[in-house]
Amino acid sequence: MGRISSRRPYHGRVISVDVDMVQFPDGSTGELEIVRHPGASAVIPFLDDPQSDDPRVVLIRQYRYAADGYVYEIPAGRLDAGEDPRTCALRELREETGYTATRLIPLTTFYTTPGFTDEKIHLFAAAGLSEGESQRESDEILDLAPVSLSQALQMIETGEMVDGKSMIAILFAAHFKPAR
Amino acid sequence: MGRISSRRPYHGRVISVDVDMVQFPDGSTGELEIVRHPGASAVIPFLDDPQSDDPRVVLIRQYRYAADGYVYEIPAGRLDAGEDPRTCALRELREETGYTATRLIPLTTFYTTPGFTDEKIHLFAAAGLSEGESQRESDEILDLAPVSLSQALQMIETGEMVDGKSMIAILFAAHFKPAR
Repeated sequence: MGRISSRRPYHGRVISVDVDMVQFPDGSTGELEIVRHPGASAVIPFLDDPQSDDPRVVLIRQYRYAADGYVYEIPAGRLDAGEDPRTCALRELREETGYTATRLIPLTTFYTTPGFTDEKIHLFAAAGLSEGESQRESDEILDLAPVSLSQALQMIETGEMVDGKSMIAILFAAHFKPAR
Repeated sequence: MGRISSRRPYHGRVISVDVDMVQFPDGSTGELEIVRHPGASAVIPFLDDPQSDDPRVVLIRQYRYAADGYVYEIPAGRLDAGEDPRTCALRELREETGYTATRLIPLTTFYTTPGFTDEKIHLFAAAGLSEGESQRESDEILDLAPVSLSQALQMIETGEMVDGKSMIAILFAAHFKPAR
């Protein structure tokens, strides 16, 4: 699928929109809209050994303007330019929850919604946590919500949890117990 | 979190970008970028009884311009204006795979990435499939890939599957066996 031309009708603070003219394999051409995003890291913080029976994890409850309400999530945030995803994960964990971690276990990397954006999330599990001071940004209105993994799974089953990356992290951690 | 003003610097074919001036609970104000999206339905199609031991599901392998490569996914597509998510799920299943379904089981609804878009995906499981003719759009370059649920889980564990909605569907279906 070849790019014939590209224009950027919107260049914003976090995202940009490109409209690319591309040629499809059947020879036809068309315009595709793509939201360019720097990518992000997200981390599921374990208060207990991730391998134990029903370990507790730390969720945050955060106001999301796009969702027009409060959403349960795992800590996450955008990559700074050139930032290593591990560094970003540990930074966001500390900023949003105050916790530092001695172990950071990579789980997977995925596209949030590849139909219209190149945003990738690097997903980690954090363990060996110690408490500190959180440093929230002014647009981050959030509360900490420690729950057991089985409670988090129930929040997914009942529809109380509606954030894609957090659902992946919880289901992934429950299904494939992260290695120590 | 109150909206003070809103402008729409980009209005596209599928998405639009709004930049809203909002007041935060601490009284400060700031601009937030939000990608407005009509929402979508996605469906995990079961070739065998979803309650059976290791049922087969139908994945599609599709070129994704945003991911710059081929991606394994479940069938999905945008809601037409005013369209019921169930109707959309059955339509996309038929268009992308050729299958019609006698049973459509709602699994959950989630935000793909609520940090910058209001896109919601309505997720279903489909069962009781019969084969028909697929009707793909010109920008949909895709192959069908029937796999067992355990194979799909392995594709998630190894990182071969990188599409968020499909990871949620497969992990959700494996963990909470959908009711008949």
